[in-house]
Amino acid sequence: MLDAADAPTPRALLFDVFGTLVDWRGPVARELESVFAPRGEARDWDGLARFWRRLYQPAMEEIRSGRRGFVPLDVLHRENLQRMLEEHRLQASPDEIAHLTRAWHRLAPWPDTVAGMQALRPRFVLAACSNGNVALMVNLARHAGLPFDMILGAEIAGAYKPDPRAYMESARLLDLAPGECLMVAAHASDLEAARALGFRTAYLHRPEEYGTGPAAAPPGPWDVSVGDLPALARAL
Amino acid sequence: MLDAADAPTPRALLFDVFGTLVDWRGPVARELESVFAPRGEARDWDGLARFWRRLYQPAMEEIRSGRRGFVPLDVLHRENLQRMLEEHRLQASPDEIAHLTRAWHRLAPWPDTVAGMQALRPRFVLAACSNGNVALMVNLARHAGLPFDMILGAEIAGAYKPDPRAYMESARLLDLAPGECLMVAAHASDLEAARALGFRTAYLHRPEEYGTGPAAAPPGPWDVSVGDLPALARAL
Repeated sequence: MLDAADAPTPRALLFDVFGTLVDWRGPVARELESVFAPRGEARDWDGLARFWRRLYQPAMEEIRSGRRGFVPLDVLHRENLQRMLEEHRLQASPDEIAHLTRAWHRLAPWPDTVAGMQALRPRFVLAACSNGNVALMVNLARHAGLPFDMILGAEIAGAYKPDPRAYMESARLLDLAPGECLMVAAHASDLEAARALGFRTAYLHRPEEYGTGPAAAPPGPWDVSVGDLPALARAL
Repeated sequence: MLDAADAPTPRALLFDVFGTLVDWRGPVARELESVFAPRGEARDWDGLARFWRRLYQPAMEEIRSGRRGFVPLDVLHRENLQRMLEEHRLQASPDEIAHLTRAWHRLAPWPDTVAGMQALRPRFVLAACSNGNVALMVNLARHAGLPFDMILGAEIAGAYKPDPRAYMESARLLDLAPGECLMVAAHASDLEAARALGFRTAYLHRPEEYGTGPAAAPPGPWDVSVGDLPALARAL
């Protein structure tokens, strides 16, 4: 990790979103419960949210590998929801499936997220660099109060992270070199891909994403490692 | 014009920016003056700003026609600036040319723009649908305080308005049908192109853009015609 004095200041912060800026596990579990509990279903809603999420990387890998053309994440979320419901023998109407697919548009910010972004925004361009599609991110940013200057990432680039195009196209559209961009994420794989392309990296420790993370941030070759966004604002 | 009671409510407002949300003539004239007046040049700065702007449509037409591949508006602005300087026998250093090219990143909102957008934002997704490139629009939105949810338009679509792709790609990325989008512009040609594709249209009368416009809005087949953005917020 560089000392703050050594690190040239980035111009833009590119944010991973799911898990990094917002909690998906709690809100998705509550939305599943709100649809199915009133009809007498008693399930492990948190476990179902995690099951749904586990289908995310394999679905994107079909596209990253070239076996399938690019489709927005809303499409993958709907397909994965339908598979989850079938495997767990839960019945839902088309309207309910459409409603639950958009649960990912209604996630909740972590307690420090909005204040942290507001503290960073006067000094840095703040952009989403997520695998969520544009409509999802626009709705989520409005719902959660995330003050992005711009939404970039998978759909704009036509490629899912960690495909290099998702990062490089984001920097190109901001007219910045990779080294002028700081990728902020709670996942080492995301930061590793960005770092290999010359991006600066900030690890944001979110042990509550799965509820099973270590109390302390694992070590890594990141420029900055912090426990919340106000700490990132102070570190930069 | 539809009565407000007849018009179904749009979900998103797509804004033209230069002339519609911001004044370019005054700020560009002042930036030219601030560079050249200290070295003794006395020119018609407003006329030079209008000359620079007149090179805008022909430069984009080279790309719309297919004679030239897509390049961001910052590139066209720089080329047009150099041509304007040559034709008017003004000398500028590379640093000055870079600085003046980015005068378009530092334009000023019309007096009603920011309050009007803030009044509209709780009810509608607000997106730029401009010919300005992403970096230009991000910087301009931050400079002028324009609260966009998203920046769409020419660079994201790879096509300059009024090419239909600039409008259709904006609606597609918002996951909306054209009829769920309201195009807001001070220029009939922009609205005509959007209307032909099924977009709703709002004419925003800006007689100060060139300083020579008629006092009243010219008639047109628009869903709404207003003199400022707070009036649009009341009409919707």
